[in-house]
Amino acid sequence: MLKTTECHAQSIMDKADILARFSCDEGALTRGYLTKEHKAAHQQLAIWMEEAGLTTWEDSVGNQWGRKVASNPDAPTVIIGSHSDTVTNAGKYDGNLGILLGIESLKQLSHHEFPFNIDVVAFADEEGLRFDTTLIGSSAVAGQFNAQWFDIKDSEGITMAQAMQDFGLLPSKAGLDCRDPKETLAYLEVHIEQGPVLEAQDLAVGVVTGIAGAKRFKLDVSGVAGHAGTVPLPLRHDALCAVAEMISTIETYAKENDIVATVGKCDVKKGGAVNVIPGDVSFTIDIRSLEQTKLESACEHLLEQLESIAEYRNVDLGCEQIYQADAVKCAQSLQSLWGNAVEVVTQSSPYFLPSGAGHDALAMQHLTNVGMLFVRCEKGISHNPKEAVMTEDVQVALQCMMEMLLQIESNSPQ
Amino acid sequence: MLKTTECHAQSIMDKADILARFSCDEGALTRGYLTKEHKAAHQQLAIWMEEAGLTTWEDSVGNQWGRKVASNPDAPTVIIGSHSDTVTNAGKYDGNLGILLGIESLKQLSHHEFPFNIDVVAFADEEGLRFDTTLIGSSAVAGQFNAQWFDIKDSEGITMAQAMQDFGLLPSKAGLDCRDPKETLAYLEVHIEQGPVLEAQDLAVGVVTGIAGAKRFKLDVSGVAGHAGTVPLPLRHDALCAVAEMISTIETYAKENDIVATVGKCDVKKGGAVNVIPGDVSFTIDIRSLEQTKLESACEHLLEQLESIAEYRNVDLGCEQIYQADAVKCAQSLQSLWGNAVEVVTQSSPYFLPSGAGHDALAMQHLTNVGMLFVRCEKGISHNPKEAVMTEDVQVALQCMMEMLLQIESNSPQ
Repeated sequence: MLKTTECHAQSIMDKADILARFSCDEGALTRGYLTKEHKAAHQQLAIWMEEAGLTTWEDSVGNQWGRKVASNPDAPTVIIGSHSDTVTNAGKYDGNLGILLGIESLKQLSHHEFPFNIDVVAFADEEGLRFDTTLIGSSAVAGQFNAQWFDIKDSEGITMAQAMQDFGLLPSKAGLDCRDPKETLAYLEVHIEQGPVLEAQDLAVGVVTGIAGAKRFKLDVSGVAGHAGTVPLPLRHDALCAVAEMISTIETYAKENDIVATVGKCDVKKGGAVNVIPGDVSFTIDIRSLEQTKLESACEHLLEQLESIAEYRNVDLGCEQIYQADAVKCAQSLQSLWGNAVEVVTQSSPYFLPSGAGHDALAMQHLTNVGMLFVRCEKGISHNPKEAVMTEDVQVALQCMMEMLLQIESNSPQ
Repeated sequence: MLKTTECHAQSIMDKADILARFSCDEGALTRGYLTKEHKAAHQQLAIWMEEAGLTTWEDSVGNQWGRKVASNPDAPTVIIGSHSDTVTNAGKYDGNLGILLGIESLKQLSHHEFPFNIDVVAFADEEGLRFDTTLIGSSAVAGQFNAQWFDIKDSEGITMAQAMQDFGLLPSKAGLDCRDPKETLAYLEVHIEQGPVLEAQDLAVGVVTGIAGAKRFKLDVSGVAGHAGTVPLPLRHDALCAVAEMISTIETYAKENDIVATVGKCDVKKGGAVNVIPGDVSFTIDIRSLEQTKLESACEHLLEQLESIAEYRNVDLGCEQIYQADAVKCAQSLQSLWGNAVEVVTQSSPYFLPSGAGHDALAMQHLTNVGMLFVRCEKGISHNPKEAVMTEDVQVALQCMMEMLLQIESNSPQ
């Protein structure tokens, strides 16, 4: 079965290579929202969508759409999507793979009539590279477009409203063409895992159970700076020693309580000096869990523990929450259908895993049920030119997507 | 006794205020080696030396000298000194207090004839602010001047040789006027403690037992960077979590083994990011002990412990020694005499403490026996405009210095 259809995955890989050439940076893939290169990439996607027999259009915020029209055009719609923007010096598959795979699946199913419309969408902004907000494309589709975004400026001082006009859009119309929940059946997304779990499990694909909620904090520890040679240890209020104990406490807590926690930044004020006891150290915590209540209680308990470390070490602790996103569960019904699809294609039990990273599904769940499939990527590396997927795995994912559409058809009310 | 002589300490405090005006920075005290302001400060010191009845001269590297000539001018010499250069945005007392106190003690003893010459010297470079080496002034006096230093450039590209010429010195003569060990009786230095021990002990002064040896290391930990949301904890090689454990291990080891150890710098590569698992972290260790063998074995044992942390956490550890200075003991005989002097002046037992910081005595021990007295400074703060000493404490130190010279006289062969 795999053998006869292998050329279709190769076509996706080839198109990913071509799409990666639409870049604002020479020699690297960087494609910000509403840039000229972004427009050109969408024009290329539109050509491929039409080759697959889809009707194409651009929406009010620049998302590129293609539709396989249902036997009854008034039927509801299944939306397949992912994003076409990238981070700086990105990989070729993050986002783009899901779009190309959506197009290819409909090309392969062009002779099959579905009782619902199937749209493929290239969301124009998920990464938030250019403006200081993310998920602009999918938020607009889901009725969550925020007019305050118009005034946000990029690094060159261009407002989002101006950038929209330059792209050929009318800011006054932005988000007005959002989709109607009643006319939407489901949102499906195939994405590279961006983590090492499927590779460790030796699996091509996995069904996503949900997207972890996240909270981020910035913490400032103030002790007393001093001469590294002249202040005896019992008289010190060493901020870095306090932070070291806090980092170890966070790591131990996360392991014992099955949450994901990361200290990503740790800065001694002004860089510190080899012969100075650190007086002020700042660090960040990123905490994630698929269970919102677990996330909330983990934050509470952890911050209590850090407070008590600060107290007995006689240093001050300041804490500011700098980000928060609630956990989102993928619809149980869609998880089951993805599971069926994986079982049909791979002849083995589906593997279920949470997503630690955010995706367009975060915004789309405001519109409809969401269901995601992850594809194994090499060493879990992403947001990096080394991002890699195997053609065989893309083939499995492509077949799963086709099977998934058939599963939805079999399970939808006639 | 204190009451009648209090004005002399006040004179030292007043002169410290005046001396602080000779600065390369407006509104802050910064005085680099061989600058115009340094020359002017030495000219002021020479005036005060002459007012105290001393014969003055500048030596081959720019040190400013004043001599109270012995009854027999061929007699050996006791040298009293400290440094006149400062760090950036310095305090008024680090170094300068010891020079002014030396001058004042000889002024007060001007009618007393000693059987040895007594020199007061303002060492021109101890801090190493301008050129990338320290203790230039005292090294030259002790016969340790290194001709390789001539080519070292300051931040403006001026070589030390050029700076010497600009100062009015002949580089070809640098260090040739070093002192003869046979003609030198002792080196005495009064310095602010730059630490909080005397304040914690509620003491004005303390006798220094020696200067701790120090070793410094730069350590590089390499794990694997990754997405903070997508890599489960058991699959991580988090360089910062490893470093946190190492810092705690260093702290615990130092406390348990009575050495002084400090991690002063800790840098996540490129600053890190809130949502990225740190892949590369560098940090520094500064380890000090008055016992050279203890210092050596502490370094060995600690680095072994860090290696084993790196090993079980599956991260790489690179280690480079970036500095080393051997521990120096103050001469037992001079410690005893300082102790006697403190007992005479304060009517209580002397307190002995090690110096964690380096001083000119480090270089001068190559020439002669060294003996130091520390003066309490507020909160142990130094290298900072907040550096402060109490006039009463300076008075105690002044009387101790005068008594010390009398003690040396009583104990020297007639």
